[in-house]
Amino acid sequence: MEGQSPRVRDIGEFKLIDRIARIAGPPGRGALIGIGDDTALLEPSEGRLLLATCDVQVEGVHFLREVISPRQLGRRALAINLSDIASMGGIPRWAILSLVLPPDLPVSWVEEFYTGLREEGEQFEVPVVGGNLSRSPGPLVVDLTLLGEVEPELVVERRGASPGDLLIVTGELGLAGAGLLVLQDRRPSGDEGELVQAFLTPRPRVQEGRLIATSRLARAMIDLSDGLASDLHRLCQASGVGARIEAVRLPLPEAVRQTAQERGIDPLELALFGGEDYELLVAASPEAASSLVRLLADAGVPARVVGEVRPQNEGISLVFPDGTVRPLPPAGWDHFAAREDIPGGGGRRWQTGSSA
Amino acid sequence: MEGQSPRVRDIGEFKLIDRIARIAGPPGRGALIGIGDDTALLEPSEGRLLLATCDVQVEGVHFLREVISPRQLGRRALAINLSDIASMGGIPRWAILSLVLPPDLPVSWVEEFYTGLREEGEQFEVPVVGGNLSRSPGPLVVDLTLLGEVEPELVVERRGASPGDLLIVTGELGLAGAGLLVLQDRRPSGDEGELVQAFLTPRPRVQEGRLIATSRLARAMIDLSDGLASDLHRLCQASGVGARIEAVRLPLPEAVRQTAQERGIDPLELALFGGEDYELLVAASPEAASSLVRLLADAGVPARVVGEVRPQNEGISLVFPDGTVRPLPPAGWDHFAAREDIPGGGGRRWQTGSSA
Repeated sequence: MEGQSPRVRDIGEFKLIDRIARIAGPPGRGALIGIGDDTALLEPSEGRLLLATCDVQVEGVHFLREVISPRQLGRRALAINLSDIASMGGIPRWAILSLVLPPDLPVSWVEEFYTGLREEGEQFEVPVVGGNLSRSPGPLVVDLTLLGEVEPELVVERRGASPGDLLIVTGELGLAGAGLLVLQDRRPSGDEGELVQAFLTPRPRVQEGRLIATSRLARAMIDLSDGLASDLHRLCQASGVGARIEAVRLPLPEAVRQTAQERGIDPLELALFGGEDYELLVAASPEAASSLVRLLADAGVPARVVGEVRPQNEGISLVFPDGTVRPLPPAGWDHFAAREDIPGGGGRRWQTGSSA
Repeated sequence: MEGQSPRVRDIGEFKLIDRIARIAGPPGRGALIGIGDDTALLEPSEGRLLLATCDVQVEGVHFLREVISPRQLGRRALAINLSDIASMGGIPRWAILSLVLPPDLPVSWVEEFYTGLREEGEQFEVPVVGGNLSRSPGPLVVDLTLLGEVEPELVVERRGASPGDLLIVTGELGLAGAGLLVLQDRRPSGDEGELVQAFLTPRPRVQEGRLIATSRLARAMIDLSDGLASDLHRLCQASGVGARIEAVRLPLPEAVRQTAQERGIDPLELALFGGEDYELLVAASPEAASSLVRLLADAGVPARVVGEVRPQNEGISLVFPDGTVRPLPPAGWDHFAAREDIPGGGGRRWQTGSSA
């Protein structure tokens, strides 16, 4: 198919924009002007605060075109940003997209990318309302900025966790990390399809984040993009606390254990450092935590307590299955460091300093 | 200096973020959370609509590191987005930035870039409230998303021009295009510094756009990023009209004439197709146009009538100095086409379709 499709350089920018606008569809839902003027014109909801986040994905750093389809990448580009809005307790609203495209990219690739983006957007009522196109002399780059809204009284920040709070994780951990291992082997079997999918097209916890926020039971929340260890460090740093995670409580599905063990890797590593799970990590008082776990279970979302918030001077530690306690390093990925081989990897947000 | 500065890969992402956050400073002005959580948390003004736009700049396509300093690029990245907010009549508020950095980039480059961004931001009270960092296996990429606000009754769209309206341009045309010619020669003389500066660090017409919007005298407005011809075509397409520009009325400064003539180029070409001037093109009824020109002159901004809006079936034409009338093509730049040699060039917005 790619061989028959014209290339981006063949049809020129204007026609490409026309094709994109046709796939993106009308902006709808609070967008008075989408693609079609100097800026998008949006109608924020009265009395709500605005949320803004962005995530850039670079070919060769965050994805490989041989591994992820354009449609999957479109879904993923939106999903990883949706997860950030979810972790603030917000409602996603509008996406703005910059695409930096190699001139020899098939036009069909761009169309498929937008199809994925629209599919994901339709699920969460998030239209693409504007953006920017450029030629790339190197890798394909996708940068998506997502705007959302939240009631001032419902915002859940990273800061706010107190010693004695319990730490809850939604869903399961390590699926995406295991999926990446499978992809690196380049021999995914049928059973491993779920893992690969978890890695390529994560399911952002938008409804869950909203449920947690409206319950007002959470003291702090963060999404798990870089791995539980890394993101726990961020939450603790922002809250000025320490934490203790219990390995036996981590929601490690059998498929993750098996994939790791087959490769001589400790499954715990995938749960703690694998990243890309896009689950939510929540701190809540013990009473609130039980209510939260029940509330989520009632909504069909598994969630469990995985540890406890501790005073800052105790640091961040892990209780191993045998009872030994050791400091838990943030580890996680650093895009400027050595791991050049990773076809996916959380575009790490800057949001590591303390808030205003 | 670059030789002594550590490289981006040497200090790792966390430290780089810390350095950036220190330069960026507190988010201030309506930003409850800036760099430091999963998303920025912003407080929109009551009763205003939201404006959102982005512009990506790619090394080797929009800039060359040998030609533009990091500080200039920081200013420019914000300025070209400010111009889009200006052309809607809006007030710029918050910037979100994605940086895709080659690992061997000196840390001092990133710091200087942020210094430029902060300098430009301080002029317009626009803080950087969030963003994203990634490693680049290829060119340096800067993608800035800018949010702004505007009262619903003051928005000036591209559509709205009517036959009989006059077309006004602020400032002068061709300076940036001439600056690019000078840079391509790699022999800027003292006198040409102003041209080069116009190209590298354009001055967005934020106050002017706001003045035009609050006057309520304009029917349509667009900023001149890709050249008068190209952007006039967009305004006319959105408004469903034609236009006639008079060459003798174009504000072509002497320095532009001289630079063009020295190189055997028609100065008109720079005014019409040069791009990057970031002036405003406004359509207004004849009475309103006189008032607007006076209003702008009183504010110290030269503005002049350069032509007239015509019925759509007359097309878009140019009256040459000798009185001949010819169709005016949009020309402008297309990033996927041949002009690989251009170190700067308007990251063309998608906003070419009709509005919702």
